[in-house]
Amino acid sequence: MKGLLERAQAYDKSDPLASHQSAFCLPPSIVYLDGNSLGPVSANAKHFLNECVEQQWQTDLIGSWNTHQWITMPQRVGASLAPLLGAEPHELISCDSISVNLFKLLSHIVNSCSERDTLLVQRGNFPTDNYVAQGLAQLTSGRITLKEVDTADLSRHLDTRVAAVVMSQVNYKTGERYDIADICEHAHRNGALVLCDLAHSAGVLKLDLHQLKVDFAVGCGYKFLNGGPGAPGFIYVAERHHNHLQPALTGWMGHRSPFDFEADYHPAHGVTGLLTGTPPILSMAALLGALKDFKGCAMENLEAKSHALGDFFLTALAELGIANQLTLITPTEHARRGAQLSFEHPEAYGLCQALIEAGVIGDFRAPRILRFGFSPLFLSFTNVLHAAEMLQRILASQSYRDAKYTERKAVT
Amino acid sequence: MKGLLERAQAYDKSDPLASHQSAFCLPPSIVYLDGNSLGPVSANAKHFLNECVEQQWQTDLIGSWNTHQWITMPQRVGASLAPLLGAEPHELISCDSISVNLFKLLSHIVNSCSERDTLLVQRGNFPTDNYVAQGLAQLTSGRITLKEVDTADLSRHLDTRVAAVVMSQVNYKTGERYDIADICEHAHRNGALVLCDLAHSAGVLKLDLHQLKVDFAVGCGYKFLNGGPGAPGFIYVAERHHNHLQPALTGWMGHRSPFDFEADYHPAHGVTGLLTGTPPILSMAALLGALKDFKGCAMENLEAKSHALGDFFLTALAELGIANQLTLITPTEHARRGAQLSFEHPEAYGLCQALIEAGVIGDFRAPRILRFGFSPLFLSFTNVLHAAEMLQRILASQSYRDAKYTERKAVT
Repeated sequence: MKGLLERAQAYDKSDPLASHQSAFCLPPSIVYLDGNSLGPVSANAKHFLNECVEQQWQTDLIGSWNTHQWITMPQRVGASLAPLLGAEPHELISCDSISVNLFKLLSHIVNSCSERDTLLVQRGNFPTDNYVAQGLAQLTSGRITLKEVDTADLSRHLDTRVAAVVMSQVNYKTGERYDIADICEHAHRNGALVLCDLAHSAGVLKLDLHQLKVDFAVGCGYKFLNGGPGAPGFIYVAERHHNHLQPALTGWMGHRSPFDFEADYHPAHGVTGLLTGTPPILSMAALLGALKDFKGCAMENLEAKSHALGDFFLTALAELGIANQLTLITPTEHARRGAQLSFEHPEAYGLCQALIEAGVIGDFRAPRILRFGFSPLFLSFTNVLHAAEMLQRILASQSYRDAKYTERKAVT
Repeated sequence: MKGLLERAQAYDKSDPLASHQSAFCLPPSIVYLDGNSLGPVSANAKHFLNECVEQQWQTDLIGSWNTHQWITMPQRVGASLAPLLGAEPHELISCDSISVNLFKLLSHIVNSCSERDTLLVQRGNFPTDNYVAQGLAQLTSGRITLKEVDTADLSRHLDTRVAAVVMSQVNYKTGERYDIADICEHAHRNGALVLCDLAHSAGVLKLDLHQLKVDFAVGCGYKFLNGGPGAPGFIYVAERHHNHLQPALTGWMGHRSPFDFEADYHPAHGVTGLLTGTPPILSMAALLGALKDFKGCAMENLEAKSHALGDFFLTALAELGIANQLTLITPTEHARRGAQLSFEHPEAYGLCQALIEAGVIGDFRAPRILRFGFSPLFLSFTNVLHAAEMLQRILASQSYRDAKYTERKAVT
């Protein structure tokens, strides 16, 4: 069998996405395995942002709402996302954060389901998702109840009282991917809706929201979509729900005619009715630029490469003799994992810090999880081999036990 | 009496804020009277944004949450705003949009007022404010009712059923400024709270939120604060309310320990508990830079110059013999007006477009209002005179009746 380096080089040579790497502005000395937390900047993202500042804001000023179509930017970002999610362009809009967008969709569900009183939420989901459901339920003065259950038990709890299931497709900590199609089938058979958080899916997994029959989805722009820190999120609403949206959280940009300044709220048709206030145009310009980097990338190639990078990382750990020093907590089966691999290690924090100092950037989740993201547009197989080798070196030297690595920083 | 130009030059010479004009990157050929809608970019805003992209996002990547303190950016923007609002730094936070922030505060009010069932909202307020109140009331299934009354009647409707008054300090259309101190006094005497929208106040009026006894306030970053298109908004909560905040709309960034990823929501103390999702860091960096331009500016100087610019504009219109061709709908008394002057004209739309083509940028509000904003940091008295002279020329030539000006664009 060929050596690891030879194999890495061969994979890189036959990688259909290899040409995309040069679009990103990553420091040459690092291997960035944290695209699942904050994607890196690309030349397109910088170019769009720069145009937005220098030409649009600086020179054309307020007129840019017309001349540079700032007014349709949420829809244009949505349309750029559509091919990555298997959606129609008019089913998506970009705005606000996941928290805020979840609140809008959940409040619509609550406003439109007079007969059902339960929201079924996934235990272990990203905290925001359940906080939002908690806050909304409290506001209804007891009309709506939350039921929090393990993902494996969601189907079994679907009864005629459940208005909707709120869940993530991929678990942020473990990287496990759930069978959304199955949940949708069970939910719909019981007259319930499905609201799916795609934070760890968008831009990296092959999605077909139509085929999956997902009703509503949210996601963020700053992870695998590389839209920049805190980039605006997105909302997907299947077309069949476009006529009946009744969010409780609204704003003038979602009005059917915002510049008539009407006293009462009449939503615009479809997803546009889910806009609230004036969107953060600068952040949105960077996201629009970042999405250009996905042009012409088949979703199946993105997912296949991400899995191939992860598989090669696992192979390298095994062949370097360190696989048994870390406990993989992500399922290895492709259909059951997202684009990250998570490992447990008793000294995960120090290990993560030592890796970062060595130029291999992953992240840590308390109390002992190391997460590595395999973002397909900017990573090479050679990068991944380098990361595995650095991990081997650090484990061998036990440098990760050094106080300079184990002392906690505020955030990771 | 000296001529208009001589007076303009003399005012410019003695203007204590004149040195700030060079901080802004305005095209030399225009007079920008639309800072009440979108403030222009400054060198500081560009510098902060550029640093955020080139050094922080590009080079330091995910580590910037720690090393560049992205995690405290909402608080740092809040602290920069404090001297402009007469607030303590820890009473302010920057995040989301006015719509979303209003929803958080109103949901707190609704969650914490078990005995009162009415929200008193101001007729003619900026539409978003009342849409948000409408959406929230609907969600409570009848527990909360809205009462919409004219500003002059607010005090009279304050009774023991009113939980809070929701109003703007300055009317977005007419530029009229209301007596917040008086409303606060009446409200508090009746056990009600006051939530004030400062969209057209922040950065341009002398505010002392403490002295005014305002309970809660919101505002945006993109008008007189010059933070960029769709810049994040802000929330003010008087310290006396910091122990009891119960917003229904929450998110992980408002949790007391976001990186513990706890299953249940426990808010951080004070205004930090009003954060929701990950904030748009790029947009917030520009806003933080823009606020640097206010450093050392006394609020009374900002307000005084804004009023002086407006007064000089009115003088110029009178002396140029065109005052009677426009109907001023803003009170002239300083205490009763914000930083804009609004005029009615039967052909306001064409007039606005003709002015824009001549390099004088104001804006139009249907059906016949022309708005001119007198932003004190970047405008000179000579600018204002030039605007009045262009208006005179356009009115005299009647060029504003030309079809190229009267044909409506999508947005103004």
